Amino acid sequence: MMKGKGSRFERDLIGELWKNGFAAIRVAGSGVSHFPCPDIVAGNGRKVLAIEVKMRTSLPLYLSKEEIEKLRKFSEIFGAEELVALKLPRKDWKFFRIRDLCETGKGYRIDEETYANGMDIYDIKGLEQTKLTQ
Amino acid sequence: MMKGKGSRFERDLIGELWKNGFAAIRVAGSGVSHFPCPDIVAGNGRKVLAIEVKMRTSLPLYLSKEEIEKLRKFSEIFGAEELVALKLPRKDWKFFRIRDLCETGKGYRIDEETYANGMDIYDIKGLEQTKLTQ
Repeated sequence: MMKGKGSRFERDLIGELWKNGFAAIRVAGSGVSHFPCPDIVAGNGRKVLAIEVKMRTSLPLYLSKEEIEKLRKFSEIFGAEELVALKLPRKDWKFFRIRDLCETGKGYRIDEETYANGMDIYDIKGLEQTKLTQ
Repeated sequence: MMKGKGSRFERDLIGELWKNGFAAIRVAGSGVSHFPCPDIVAGNGRKVLAIEVKMRTSLPLYLSKEEIEKLRKFSEIFGAEELVALKLPRKDWKFFRIRDLCETGKGYRIDEETYANGMDIYDIKGLEQTKLTQ
């Protein structure tokens, strides 16, 4: 369960999403529910996003197979596009589709190269609509 | 902010929604956020629902203009259908669109007649797909 620092970052992203035309909410008990749940769900009338939120002081970021499977499962039933959002110190939020992540034996990784190819909030907003669907 | 009894009822409805093919989540801080937020958001790949959750021991249920406006605002931006879900003792959940509610001077009301015409989870699920959109 994310408390304090975790939920502060989540609230920061919620604010960014509202500023960019999305209605966005934090999911209650996303870490403890026995249903598969993302951290944030957002929609803008054209698309729905299910977002797993991460913050790190440095790369790489490792994600377990389980958490990505949960995100995928929720998104499949809900009808959402699944994204991982990553906040690094003094950087804007970056967004990654599951297929953008590097697969490792035990799960997934975001390294420097993956990070450099990440999407920003404007890509997500739909200024580059094709990026999410291509 | 809903605690204890309130969130117990919300979790009960979350369970009902999952059983009926929806991915459903409770919204964190729905009563305290400065963004307009419903209590529950659910989707099944065909439609998204933004739900305000109420439980009462008896009718009528009164809803303020403000809470309905918040629900409407959120749903408009997100791209969701707004619903009020009501739990009465020893009854199944009933669902109401805003236009099904009785308008009063200060807001809205669900009386016996409105309640009798409420939708159940099977209507919501889409067995009567037209009911939500007609």
